[in-house]
Amino acid sequence: MKIALDAMGGDNAPVAEVGGAVAACRDLGISVILVGDPALIEAETAKYPEARSLGLEIVAATERITMDEHPAAAVKHKRQSSIVIANELVRNGQADGVVSAGNTGAAMAASLLRLGRIKGIDRPAIGFPVPTAKGVTVLLDMGANADCDAENLVQFAMMGAVYAEKVLSITNPRIGLLNIGTEPTKGNSLALSAYPLLSDAGLNFIGNVEGNDLPQGAADVIVCDGFIGNVVLKFAEGLSSMLFTQIKETVAATLKGKIGGLLLQSSLRSIRKRLDYAEYGGAPLLGVNGVSIIAHGRSNARAIANAIKAAAKASDEKVVEAICQALSNKAR
Amino acid sequence: MKIALDAMGGDNAPVAEVGGAVAACRDLGISVILVGDPALIEAETAKYPEARSLGLEIVAATERITMDEHPAAAVKHKRQSSIVIANELVRNGQADGVVSAGNTGAAMAASLLRLGRIKGIDRPAIGFPVPTAKGVTVLLDMGANADCDAENLVQFAMMGAVYAEKVLSITNPRIGLLNIGTEPTKGNSLALSAYPLLSDAGLNFIGNVEGNDLPQGAADVIVCDGFIGNVVLKFAEGLSSMLFTQIKETVAATLKGKIGGLLLQSSLRSIRKRLDYAEYGGAPLLGVNGVSIIAHGRSNARAIANAIKAAAKASDEKVVEAICQALSNKAR
Repeated sequence: MKIALDAMGGDNAPVAEVGGAVAACRDLGISVILVGDPALIEAETAKYPEARSLGLEIVAATERITMDEHPAAAVKHKRQSSIVIANELVRNGQADGVVSAGNTGAAMAASLLRLGRIKGIDRPAIGFPVPTAKGVTVLLDMGANADCDAENLVQFAMMGAVYAEKVLSITNPRIGLLNIGTEPTKGNSLALSAYPLLSDAGLNFIGNVEGNDLPQGAADVIVCDGFIGNVVLKFAEGLSSMLFTQIKETVAATLKGKIGGLLLQSSLRSIRKRLDYAEYGGAPLLGVNGVSIIAHGRSNARAIANAIKAAAKASDEKVVEAICQALSNKAR
Repeated sequence: MKIALDAMGGDNAPVAEVGGAVAACRDLGISVILVGDPALIEAETAKYPEARSLGLEIVAATERITMDEHPAAAVKHKRQSSIVIANELVRNGQADGVVSAGNTGAAMAASLLRLGRIKGIDRPAIGFPVPTAKGVTVLLDMGANADCDAENLVQFAMMGAVYAEKVLSITNPRIGLLNIGTEPTKGNSLALSAYPLLSDAGLNFIGNVEGNDLPQGAADVIVCDGFIGNVVLKFAEGLSSMLFTQIKETVAATLKGKIGGLLLQSSLRSIRKRLDYAEYGGAPLLGVNGVSIIAHGRSNARAIANAIKAAAKASDEKVVEAICQALSNKAR
């Protein structure tokens, strides 16, 4: 098992990337190919005494795509960029999956262009593992497709079900449609047209799921268009950040608060961590012809290691093949 | 100033309604007409010794619309329902505004049918005052219109600006378009077509606002279609409820936690209150020909009193007339 890692991608690259690669290799036994500027990567790797014996590979990439570049154009013109080369390693069979915490659009474009789409999938989608009261719900699409049709949502549901089952080990995952009411007659035109298709898709479709049901873990996979998925996820980040800031300010305001804060510090920190989406492993780009995991730009080493782990598991469990199989079952 | 209150609407009706009416009348000097079952209302009013001298009026309504009824059908068939009669009091000039915490769809339908639309407004919208780090942002539409076009969003922006200025006393409110990126070229087809129209609408349009910007108070008015507005608001409720539940469980788990929890109890409670959308006064239905405030089904007496206050201020500040004026300025 070998995972190609875009070492120049995230906000903390290559520090978080090298740290994550070392951890994944050392603790999980996953081989990692670090793709990027060899000098920078080696300087960082040198900080880990154990790195030498782990046999981390480095593949040179002379360019990098920054967060503010136009994704498709950058991927097209920067053929020597770390994210493009990392995807090529997968396409050429030199790696079993790719992980990047860089420009999400560029990571997506690179996988789309270099790995291609699975035949029969109209629109690949990003599935985001959202922490809930009960565990994790895969929300998709989280932003790959701003406009979707009903058939797209059905494909998202099918791919999300495969990922939840294979990688998150959820048996017979419950599929929900994000909507503004529980009745089948509720919703916008997209939800209204998707509901009957989802009912007939041979999935464990449990019906509509409302915004407040999401954090409760009401479904294992929830589908929506990429516009709303993106807004909801970013809103969740903003809301919990605002909330913890307010708690912090309140704690600091009085002596009683300071003492209470000290006593609760580790608990609050663990809750915050549980809800910090950057801590989560990464979001699979489902529907491309290979394993591609997109990590949060703010990923730390632990998040990168988790993303590498998710990529390895997706490859191990043959998620791409399972999606192809599900498509051909449906076609029959 | 006289506000008609649907006394049979909310989950806690008429307890919360009567409590809110008494408070609004006693503390704010607003006259309230309680519309509903006189026996139930009187039994509740009897609990307040001061109620007799406040001169609360009761108007009888023999029917009520429950939470699970089909809104439009219920409003059409239950002509003697409290929400329909409360709206008729406004239409007939016997009240200056109406407040209901009942079935949101029915409250909307009753105002649409009994008060009518403002000429020139294609789709009335519900504006929700979302608590943010800096104060309050009016998010609209929060669910009146599941599918919207670009022109609808421009009208929402204009109406939201009037409400923010007149009722929330925000000078020259900043208008944002909820979107998945800051650049004008980002978004779904609706956002892409709305952006240039908003730029040319003569409003203080500050551009796109992302999900994570919303809790930060990045804009005073944020427009989106009613599907996404509804999902985001319900999600916010669900997320903060989950978070406080987790804090509660953590606190209860250890002795250290219990002591810390006691010390922080009042602070945490005040933060939770600040974020509890049910605590907020109410959401104006903007674009109908009269003042109509929709309160949360879970409203307590304080929330009802705040909704009555908002209705009184909207009437005082002539929000309906100001929307008409803004429309005619634009037409010129």
